[in-house]
Amino acid sequence: MTFSTHDCSKPPRASSRQLANALAHTGRAFHARGWVLGTSGNFSAVLQREPLLLLITASGLDKATLNAQHFLEIDAACNVLRGPLQPSAEALLHLAVARVCGAGAILHTHSVWGTLLSDLHASEGGLAISGYEMLKGLEGVRTHEHNEWLPIVENSQDIPALAASIEAVLLSHPDSHGFLLRAHGLYTWGEDVARARRHVEILEFLLEVLGRRERREVG
Amino acid sequence: MTFSTHDCSKPPRASSRQLANALAHTGRAFHARGWVLGTSGNFSAVLQREPLLLLITASGLDKATLNAQHFLEIDAACNVLRGPLQPSAEALLHLAVARVCGAGAILHTHSVWGTLLSDLHASEGGLAISGYEMLKGLEGVRTHEHNEWLPIVENSQDIPALAASIEAVLLSHPDSHGFLLRAHGLYTWGEDVARARRHVEILEFLLEVLGRRERREVG
Amino acid sequence: MTFSTHDCSKPPRASSRQLANALAHTGRAFHARGWVLGTSGNFSAVLQREPLLLLITASGLDKATLNAQHFLEIDAACNVLRGPLQPSAEALLHLAVARVCGAGAILHTHSVWGTLLSDLHASEGGLAISGYEMLKGLEGVRTHEHNEWLPIVENSQDIPALAASIEAVLLSHPDSHGFLLRAHGLYTWGEDVARARRHVEILEFLLEVLGRRERREVG
Amino acid sequence: MTFSTHDCSKPPRASSRQLANALAHTGRAFHARGWVLGTSGNFSAVLQREPLLLLITASGLDKATLNAQHFLEIDAACNVLRGPLQPSAEALLHLAVARVCGAGAILHTHSVWGTLLSDLHASEGGLAISGYEMLKGLEGVRTHEHNEWLPIVENSQDIPALAASIEAVLLSHPDSHGFLLRAHGLYTWGEDVARARRHVEILEFLLEVLGRRERREVG
Repeated sequence: MTFSTHDCSKPPRASSRQLANALAHTGRAFHARGWVLGTSGNFSAVLQREPLLLLITASGLDKATLNAQHFLEIDAACNVLRGPLQPSAEALLHLAVARVCGAGAILHTHSVWGTLLSDLHASEGGLAISGYEMLKGLEGVRTHEHNEWLPIVENSQDIPALAASIEAVLLSHPDSHGFLLRAHGLYTWGEDVARARRHVEILEFLLEVLGRRERREVG
Repeated sequence: MTFSTHDCSKPPRASSRQLANALAHTGRAFHARGWVLGTSGNFSAVLQREPLLLLITASGLDKATLNAQHFLEIDAACNVLRGPLQPSAEALLHLAVARVCGAGAILHTHSVWGTLLSDLHASEGGLAISGYEMLKGLEGVRTHEHNEWLPIVENSQDIPALAASIEAVLLSHPDSHGFLLRAHGLYTWGEDVARARRHVEILEFLLEVLGRRERREVG
Repeated sequence: MTFSTHDCSKPPRASSRQLANALAHTGRAFHARGWVLGTSGNFSAVLQREPLLLLITASGLDKATLNAQHFLEIDAACNVLRGPLQPSAEALLHLAVARVCGAGAILHTHSVWGTLLSDLHASEGGLAISGYEMLKGLEGVRTHEHNEWLPIVENSQDIPALAASIEAVLLSHPDSHGFLLRAHGLYTWGEDVARARRHVEILEFLLEVLGRRERREVG
Repeated sequence: MTFSTHDCSKPPRASSRQLANALAHTGRAFHARGWVLGTSGNFSAVLQREPLLLLITASGLDKATLNAQHFLEIDAACNVLRGPLQPSAEALLHLAVARVCGAGAILHTHSVWGTLLSDLHASEGGLAISGYEMLKGLEGVRTHEHNEWLPIVENSQDIPALAASIEAVLLSHPDSHGFLLRAHGLYTWGEDVARARRHVEILEFLLEVLGRRERREVG
């Protein structure tokens, strides 16, 4: 596996409608894999960097039928600028990732393995992943010998406080490509929707590998 | 994940044909996931509350090809009011749920994890589920710290007796969002088909998490 | 789950083309589930009982693209009466099942769980399955308390000898709804394609339940 | 399962466009099964034997949307003869397999079980697989008693060195139908795309069987 390098400072160029379609398509595919069941998960893309403008899924939608109408636009303070719907409650977390990581698209999934491992390893503060070729699917990684640290953040319903915790974790782990919320799920991102989706597929794959491996070794 | 609150006393408004289509679509999706294999499972929706009128799958159908013609209408005494087919043998259980819980739609699945866990935990009378963000997909639940009790009812072929057991369990656990029949499967419900489907996805997800977790900890 | 009774002595009524389409559709669905990967598996239906005429998949086909042209007709001695292709090498096994069980359709799958359990339990001569509601998906079974015995036959490349072993097993277990070939796969059947398909779904489901259960209890 | 014999010295006859379509279709199907997530995996077919001309996937593509435009043509020295894209970094490995095994098509997948088993058994230098009927899906294998040796090659980012290791392994194991790269994935091949695809399905199936089996026995 190899990936070309690219300039992370470039603004996204796709139109709002194209981004919504790309996110909706991604959401339906993730639902088919069981990664966003029961209206879980939410997806966003940066429409404009300065001042920050984010396209994000509305709250409480069945991802099996997600389409471009299910997105709305919010500013950096989480005000809805466009769209009749409520943003996802976790919009503040997306804004934190967009701000700190400079991401162009942010995807959040709830898989079985992510739920399990984020709980079982919470006391260690994260998961170390190394030695797998699939790591090269993470932006900028050139070798399977890469050490990826996937931080685990304690879950909370106090979303502003959670956003602050996440911001601190992102700042202290600038090389991480994602993070887990404990017993909750995965956040990852990329320069655009395709790269963020690639990161979801890579990290969910590696979580399943770790999950199956450890039961073998423990059991 | 967040969900809006709503008034549970409202009668369902969708037409019988629309409800049948929504249930059929749900059934085909569940079959694809392996939750209603081999003609197992059955689905219903309340057409009228007073007196109770229920739309329900006919008996013995392959859920892969379920469509609106495969439903019939029954009254509170399980008499067929409309449709040339036989109702599911478990129609009495659906009627009990509709009556006691005021549900608008009731869905019954047979998954591998539901079958396994309902048998392995039968002696405890139920499964306790707590700490998972996905719990917030259950109606009215606002935090992952919620304690969900999923009662397990001993299976029986005496359907009237089973309906009575279930009614007693539902009355003594008014906060539960579903129940398991031992070595049989899951019943859950919601105000409408979409909400009931969300509950199936949430509970089946959590059953898989518990099933995989427990083998790790035991093994 | 309930199923109506029916007269097993009735000859199948569907035309050869309809049967081929039904078998092909079933085969594609099984491939999607991973039950007939790599050209494994074969499917047949009885066209005429006296003298026996069987419609069966040709040898070595990718089941992802199976269609009605991929079937041929053979007589009781395995002579090809119609179709330019070679019958499956296991045609003799299908003929044995058609003859002994009076089946109208016979389906053979190679699942992961069937492969594993048929090997791990070979020394016991079969698998006992009891207590599961899903057992009621087997023709004539009325209660989850039913005891199903799924015989395991030692695998062999001497197909006439294997057919004789299977015939003996079928005669000594007239109540079984299927059998396993060791480290190979499942054979089951029914009065027609739909009922045989239901049996595959039920038995593959139960094999997965047993496989997952046993690792938990052993491990 | 049976497969007809055929003359391995025949050159492939399909046109470049037909081969690209067949490989793209295969890639999309593998992505659906989770075998080439996150842009992992690459696929090739021999266009001409003397001098060697290979059609191969471009680098870094999402396999969910793979199509005929995503392929390019390279010669034996890995020069791009046609197509505006970069070849996969592992093109040298495909060329080695094409040269040493005389393969007409070469497929590389990254499955969870392949990743796990290739790491856990690396110190043994390979995986022994025997006793399974599914082995007969491998070209030339006539009995489940066949002993397949699936060599495991240490992973490396030095692709020319890796190609040399693989060439040595292929020459010393001329009867093997594939090999694993440690913590990376599977390579297999066949006379044409359909046969190579059959080999992927067979070997991925057997890896899952071995992976599930061994956890049971160890655990």
